[in-house]
Amino acid sequence: MSNQKQTIMKRIGIVGISGYSGMTVLKILFNHPQVRVTYVSANNTQGKLTDIWPQFQGLTKLTCSKYDIKEALKLTDLVFLAVPHTVAMQITPELLKQGKKVIDLSADYRLNNKQDYKKWYNMEHQDLKNLKKAVYGLPELYREDIKKADLIANPGCYPTAAILSLAPLVSLHAQLINSIIIDAKSGVSGAGRKATLNFSFCELTENFKAYKILNHQHTPEIELYLKKLNKISPIIHFVPHLLPIERGIFETIYIQLKEKISLHKIHAIYKKFYKTEKFVRVLDLNQQPQLKNVAHTNYCDIGLSLDQTKQMLVITSAIDNLVKGAAGQAVQNMNIMLGYPEEEGLL
Amino acid sequence: MSNQKQTIMKRIGIVGISGYSGMTVLKILFNHPQVRVTYVSANNTQGKLTDIWPQFQGLTKLTCSKYDIKEALKLTDLVFLAVPHTVAMQITPELLKQGKKVIDLSADYRLNNKQDYKKWYNMEHQDLKNLKKAVYGLPELYREDIKKADLIANPGCYPTAAILSLAPLVSLHAQLINSIIIDAKSGVSGAGRKATLNFSFCELTENFKAYKILNHQHTPEIELYLKKLNKISPIIHFVPHLLPIERGIFETIYIQLKEKISLHKIHAIYKKFYKTEKFVRVLDLNQQPQLKNVAHTNYCDIGLSLDQTKQMLVITSAIDNLVKGAAGQAVQNMNIMLGYPEEEGLL
Amino acid sequence: MSNQKQTIMKRIGIVGISGYSGMTVLKILFNHPQVRVTYVSANNTQGKLTDIWPQFQGLTKLTCSKYDIKEALKLTDLVFLAVPHTVAMQITPELLKQGKKVIDLSADYRLNNKQDYKKWYNMEHQDLKNLKKAVYGLPELYREDIKKADLIANPGCYPTAAILSLAPLVSLHAQLINSIIIDAKSGVSGAGRKATLNFSFCELTENFKAYKILNHQHTPEIELYLKKLNKISPIIHFVPHLLPIERGIFETIYIQLKEKISLHKIHAIYKKFYKTEKFVRVLDLNQQPQLKNVAHTNYCDIGLSLDQTKQMLVITSAIDNLVKGAAGQAVQNMNIMLGYPEEEGLL
Amino acid sequence: MSNQKQTIMKRIGIVGISGYSGMTVLKILFNHPQVRVTYVSANNTQGKLTDIWPQFQGLTKLTCSKYDIKEALKLTDLVFLAVPHTVAMQITPELLKQGKKVIDLSADYRLNNKQDYKKWYNMEHQDLKNLKKAVYGLPELYREDIKKADLIANPGCYPTAAILSLAPLVSLHAQLINSIIIDAKSGVSGAGRKATLNFSFCELTENFKAYKILNHQHTPEIELYLKKLNKISPIIHFVPHLLPIERGIFETIYIQLKEKISLHKIHAIYKKFYKTEKFVRVLDLNQQPQLKNVAHTNYCDIGLSLDQTKQMLVITSAIDNLVKGAAGQAVQNMNIMLGYPEEEGLL
Repeated sequence: MSNQKQTIMKRIGIVGISGYSGMTVLKILFNHPQVRVTYVSANNTQGKLTDIWPQFQGLTKLTCSKYDIKEALKLTDLVFLAVPHTVAMQITPELLKQGKKVIDLSADYRLNNKQDYKKWYNMEHQDLKNLKKAVYGLPELYREDIKKADLIANPGCYPTAAILSLAPLVSLHAQLINSIIIDAKSGVSGAGRKATLNFSFCELTENFKAYKILNHQHTPEIELYLKKLNKISPIIHFVPHLLPIERGIFETIYIQLKEKISLHKIHAIYKKFYKTEKFVRVLDLNQQPQLKNVAHTNYCDIGLSLDQTKQMLVITSAIDNLVKGAAGQAVQNMNIMLGYPEEEGLL
Repeated sequence: MSNQKQTIMKRIGIVGISGYSGMTVLKILFNHPQVRVTYVSANNTQGKLTDIWPQFQGLTKLTCSKYDIKEALKLTDLVFLAVPHTVAMQITPELLKQGKKVIDLSADYRLNNKQDYKKWYNMEHQDLKNLKKAVYGLPELYREDIKKADLIANPGCYPTAAILSLAPLVSLHAQLINSIIIDAKSGVSGAGRKATLNFSFCELTENFKAYKILNHQHTPEIELYLKKLNKISPIIHFVPHLLPIERGIFETIYIQLKEKISLHKIHAIYKKFYKTEKFVRVLDLNQQPQLKNVAHTNYCDIGLSLDQTKQMLVITSAIDNLVKGAAGQAVQNMNIMLGYPEEEGLL
Repeated sequence: MSNQKQTIMKRIGIVGISGYSGMTVLKILFNHPQVRVTYVSANNTQGKLTDIWPQFQGLTKLTCSKYDIKEALKLTDLVFLAVPHTVAMQITPELLKQGKKVIDLSADYRLNNKQDYKKWYNMEHQDLKNLKKAVYGLPELYREDIKKADLIANPGCYPTAAILSLAPLVSLHAQLINSIIIDAKSGVSGAGRKATLNFSFCELTENFKAYKILNHQHTPEIELYLKKLNKISPIIHFVPHLLPIERGIFETIYIQLKEKISLHKIHAIYKKFYKTEKFVRVLDLNQQPQLKNVAHTNYCDIGLSLDQTKQMLVITSAIDNLVKGAAGQAVQNMNIMLGYPEEEGLL
Repeated sequence: MSNQKQTIMKRIGIVGISGYSGMTVLKILFNHPQVRVTYVSANNTQGKLTDIWPQFQGLTKLTCSKYDIKEALKLTDLVFLAVPHTVAMQITPELLKQGKKVIDLSADYRLNNKQDYKKWYNMEHQDLKNLKKAVYGLPELYREDIKKADLIANPGCYPTAAILSLAPLVSLHAQLINSIIIDAKSGVSGAGRKATLNFSFCELTENFKAYKILNHQHTPEIELYLKKLNKISPIIHFVPHLLPIERGIFETIYIQLKEKISLHKIHAIYKKFYKTEKFVRVLDLNQQPQLKNVAHTNYCDIGLSLDQTKQMLVITSAIDNLVKGAAGQAVQNMNIMLGYPEEEGLL
């Protein structure tokens, strides 16, 4: 690699490197030829990065420190925030003010009004100014806005699969829909990296359960961005479950259709809608998504099924919650923001 | 044990001992003080039973042979059929004719007309006479009929959880319901014991997928027995999924209510309906079913959730597919048929 | 059940009910016709027992309280201590003094001298008087002592499998052995029920590692009780590993034999040694132990293999760490102490 | 990419694409900028490659056909054989004769004499000429030979971890060693992709067992290549086990040392031996290998532990059996043969 090229490589920071999302951003960027990770931080652990993540021995000599705004400003051009919600909105304003680009993987800038934020995250929003300017980082729908954005609200894992699964139908045929039921199943890493009994191995292996039934904070996020696609906004019923696996989100989406429509027609609509999208695969009608086909990838696989007589449409979709549902999509957003090929590092 | 007691112990046969259901019947009966397993058979493997199931070393000296009607007639009073569908209806007539009682764990006698059987199992039914006489072995609904029955159609695993979850509402408040969506998730043992690539370890571990979407043969079974509860019969939409675990069925059931009703009222209805049932646990409203709580037990746990505003009711239920979903329920039926305490061997 | 019978049922206490071992003792005793659990306590959680262990709904109305010596004395005849080491030796003296029998599942009374205890558990032993009187609760070796004991040191999970695997050879043919290598693999429940990152689902699923290599505190326990079998005591090299499963211990034991001996002879020695033992199954030479055959049982399965040319003997053994490795063996000890059939509740 | 560059890209064939190893070669080569996979075949399945491996939708338009020597000769420069043993030696001679390079992932060319092959693989070797010329593809030991080779015998998964773990000690300090015990644990994918009951999900999940105890065909492979390092050849005792996970091999290696030596000295020997090796990570003494740190990578992690008093050395090592234990190492060999950077496609 020539010296000249190195000088123009963008310098990347990852705040919250001790979590699974932050770690996955780093892992992807090891294979990205146009950026260098120059700053990593975490508040609960410090020291050699390879002591925190020994799998990276031989790949990096980075040191992890407590977040320090001066260091972050000095060492980075763009910063990924892989921190808990409420923390992101404390860090973001100063980074933006100093001209850095920010991709926030937390929920802080996803809901675009303070009332919803307060209702679902139990706290007043602290950065209303940037809340309005944040761009929702779902490239398949907001690519043009992302190109010009300084602050990306990286979508939630469940909403990524849900919105991609529903966008063609809601955009183009909302009149078919009354309400939508989303039965979602997530791998355990979706809950983050925590030392709690509920997420201990023995409590989860060979187990399965629902949680936050009809009451999960990703519900308003799904509703909001579907509404932006079409003012006729369907009601969303959302129930998440915990799968005894490390990674992956599978959603089974039920729509009672108000009019007759053939499966082939729906399939054609989906195929056309995502024709040029590299990371959304609308499967042939004889195929169905499964988590192993998207694990460790940035793909969202979508399957379609219809009972003609009962007019029931079932959309199934699968993503890797840590990749397309978090870190991969974040890098996809970075690539768009910085003018790189959108799939760089992601294939 | 006195000689006198031995002579009155019922002699039990298990046809299809090499599968998971047959094996589980045997395992339960080891702890049943009033019966002796005197005959086991399998068509794909023969020899010492402990060569087929080494976990039973020290517990049994039974030998497994190819099914032989003469042996079965000579050695048993009651026979469990844990065989594939289409096989059960070939074996059953002669056993019944000779005065034996039969509990069929296959699907052969569950649908009560030949048209449905042909449609869903792709074969003409071969024993129409007994098809009409078979009693559906869901004790919580058909206990009185089971007492008098000679032939039990032991319910399917998915229908057991579905019908128990829905019976109180459908029986008493069918007017609230338009249609019902059942999103079901099953452990791998539900598919039986097979040497196929699709069920190999590497294809399933860390994986999850839907199958037979809106097209599973348990759909008409659920519809049929709900219809028997109430002539206003709701439409059923049923989608099963495969969980990367050995055992357990979890169902998430969605009902868009046509009228307002409070969660407490629904809870009270369920509590009352199952008040005297030992094996159905209607959970308190602050609790939710999880598979680990019913694994290796004959319980069906039921949880209730409601979004008042959206009038969406979600019923969740959990059973062990090999116990309450197959062998446990079969033994429960046997206990009722033979006049033993219903929970004998099952707690 | 008649009143008369109730009055003679023994009253059992379980201290440390919130852990996996304490819970498993309770679960086993639900099926034990001759005792009643009358007292349960835990220091980290209190309230309805079914709030701590919802799987027991319908089976018990017990309430869990903080350990209180007066309550324990008033309500129990025999107490299981399923508490961390160092806690047991604080509770035990008063219980014994007041005439209660104690079965301690912790490590506190296993090593019979204070120096070893201090070396391996980093603490002075606080109850030297009872340390000397405690009987090591491995019924296959110490049944007669257990009958007369008031205090049982219930063996560690690894030592149970190791000592049972080695007892016949060490007792009868120690001259064949120089040293013994034990490569042990344990399910995660062996580590107890803890909220730590190291035991979280995502850190362990699809993972495997060794820990405390050549330095685990069960090493001296194995050495001690092998030495009691034969003064020619072999050196033990012990390495434990963590399996990504809930339950089970598998040990692969390597012995370089000093003299030629045939596999059939060794097998005959083992068969004879355990001839009357219900819970040790010396497998035929064409069979090998596997964890699924002992899961949820009190069995210890033992397999034998020999390379004649290289004079290498390999003994494999499998137990369920929560049953024969903890709670099941504890109940087996209770049965012996109280004069019940040894297998009561355990088959 | 310029046309000119495309013309000089090497054309790669993969024979046996329907197995896990063949699939993994392909997956790695998608990220390799200097080669193109131009031919894939399988004997048990044909058609669109994405019907066999749907996870590759969007990445390839290759079609899989039955192996045809003419096609293979016409379309490829180098061929990976990911076929069962005995098949490779039938395909290899003609490919070599026509000037193709061959990397054989089967066992056919690993043992360098016909007697051993017959003894361990129960068949006469059919290609003695090339058996002598094949180079054992362990780059860390045979890099210079690999550069000049036309036929690579890609090492077995167990031998890769074993030989890398032992090479420094056996090469430089064989006098310390009498015999070596290798307790190996493998994920299920090591057994290949098969439709057999033994490898079905329910038989393996939550299970663990040993197999081919002291009798596995990788034993002579390990002995052979250790002997090449040092004529004082230690005896190898090898016991493999099956882990209930998809991928990974963990080996725990026991060496009773004949002389005193410090752990730091051994560690220094290992560090120096692998100083320039990118894919072997000798861990610091406070660290230990674990499978998750090498999953999906080409690394071999090695840990060292010593009990000074007992003179017992324990070496632990971890690889991904499908990567460093098969496909990754095969690509590493290809890179060396074709003059590419050794880590191309592998980081």
